[in-house]
Amino acid sequence: MKLKKAVITAAGASQRTLPLQMLIDRDGAAKSALCIVLEEILSAGIAEMCVVVQPGDQAAYVAAAGEHARRLQFVEQHEAKGYGHAILCAKPFVGDEPFLHAVSDHLWVRTKDAKACAQQLVEVAEREDCAVSAVQATRESLLPNFGAVGGKRVQGQPRLYAIESVLEKPTPTEAEQTLIVSGLRAGFYLCFFGMHVLTHGAMSLLEARANTGTTAIQLSPVLHELSKRERYLAHEVQGQRYDLGVKYGLTQAQLALALSGQDRAEVLTQLVELLAGRD
Amino acid sequence: MKLKKAVITAAGASQRTLPLQMLIDRDGAAKSALCIVLEEILSAGIAEMCVVVQPGDQAAYVAAAGEHARRLQFVEQHEAKGYGHAILCAKPFVGDEPFLHAVSDHLWVRTKDAKACAQQLVEVAEREDCAVSAVQATRESLLPNFGAVGGKRVQGQPRLYAIESVLEKPTPTEAEQTLIVSGLRAGFYLCFFGMHVLTHGAMSLLEARANTGTTAIQLSPVLHELSKRERYLAHEVQGQRYDLGVKYGLTQAQLALALSGQDRAEVLTQLVELLAGRD
Repeated sequence: MKLKKAVITAAGASQRTLPLQMLIDRDGAAKSALCIVLEEILSAGIAEMCVVVQPGDQAAYVAAAGEHARRLQFVEQHEAKGYGHAILCAKPFVGDEPFLHAVSDHLWVRTKDAKACAQQLVEVAEREDCAVSAVQATRESLLPNFGAVGGKRVQGQPRLYAIESVLEKPTPTEAEQTLIVSGLRAGFYLCFFGMHVLTHGAMSLLEARANTGTTAIQLSPVLHELSKRERYLAHEVQGQRYDLGVKYGLTQAQLALALSGQDRAEVLTQLVELLAGRD
Repeated sequence: MKLKKAVITAAGASQRTLPLQMLIDRDGAAKSALCIVLEEILSAGIAEMCVVVQPGDQAAYVAAAGEHARRLQFVEQHEAKGYGHAILCAKPFVGDEPFLHAVSDHLWVRTKDAKACAQQLVEVAEREDCAVSAVQATRESLLPNFGAVGGKRVQGQPRLYAIESVLEKPTPTEAEQTLIVSGLRAGFYLCFFGMHVLTHGAMSLLEARANTGTTAIQLSPVLHELSKRERYLAHEVQGQRYDLGVKYGLTQAQLALALSGQDRAEVLTQLVELLAGRD
């Protein structure tokens, strides 16, 4: 497959202002979180982007997108019918094509010398020609924050897994029963990274749920169903995700960007001075 | 004197959105920077507050003030005629009374076991019955960011200085010629802390400048004039100021709040994990 389109969800009640926050990117430039997400997607060679927003939020997002605003299309989610429903709102934009989906309230920082996280994911999906979710080995105590997958390693492909089940925010017991992946550190699970390559098949499953009249459509149950129907992989990306919505999330994301970028020395100095209590 | 009123300036073009930024305060609660500034002032026993804003900014500030909004009055600065002019705009609010003035783009973090910075300043001003600027011993390399004062220690009063001159953002040469204060570490100067107790005399000097038709009225030249006319002190507050407007200023302020508050252990752990590159 060749990916040309990306869908960014930004309509969640608690998340819609996070992409508008200003941060300093790895290159030392002040940018909105949205702008950093858009540049992550562009770095994967995807230039057509659709943002799913709450009605009325477009103007703020256009302003936050800066020079990338011209690439953006907007779709409104008129009712808070869940994360899966937000993605389904972008169906007129994606049509039958596969697409990259990224959340708008995370930032991703690649490991030194690795490619951008979105690029790593897109390359795997295009090569394997199927749906792929980016995942990160995540300690059990953080399961309440994420969707998680279980499955088997793909032979001869380090960092690649065939997904057999998906659970949203599993309990430790649920995770232990169905999500243990051999080869991971004990007490670690493969949790979602906030970006996925989804297929027409996934969109059809979302649509089928919507047609049953369900009041809220979540993504994880649909991805679980997807894993039963078509080849669906997880790729352990080389990098870290930072959820802007958790306590101190913005600060952690900012420090991670700064420490992996050109201002590393300056910010390390500031940290040491702060910890030493010096002026 | 007894201080009852505070004037907060928030009309500067580059600064007006900074007070709206959300941070997590020392008590672990999410608050706007404005809200943290208002609580700093309240902690000094001052409950009548006036915010000088650009026309049209009131609604955003009312929202950011939260439960303290009912205490706020607003005055609009219709033209960008300088920092001193912004303070003068609040004359109808303060009348002939002395008042606490605080900028809105700084946050202050008191030294452990010390009182709140504004409270330290207000207590000195009420006891000494004169204008007092809070200052911090600041290294020479940071002079381009601040107004600075020269003067002599007040006998028997640690941390208190009689101001003899005020210079805005002095060059190192200017500072060396007129602002050296005996007893400070070499290469350090007394720089403004972003809060002052000002008198009717200071307001009259601002008004006199305005009447000359000057296009921009800055505060430091007026405070220099004040030091020639009435008793005017500098008080070295026990604490640190964080300028939200400089690069990484918000992050530094956030970390300083967190490290001096109830989430210290949690944030220190996050910092160590971030520096170690662990999940």
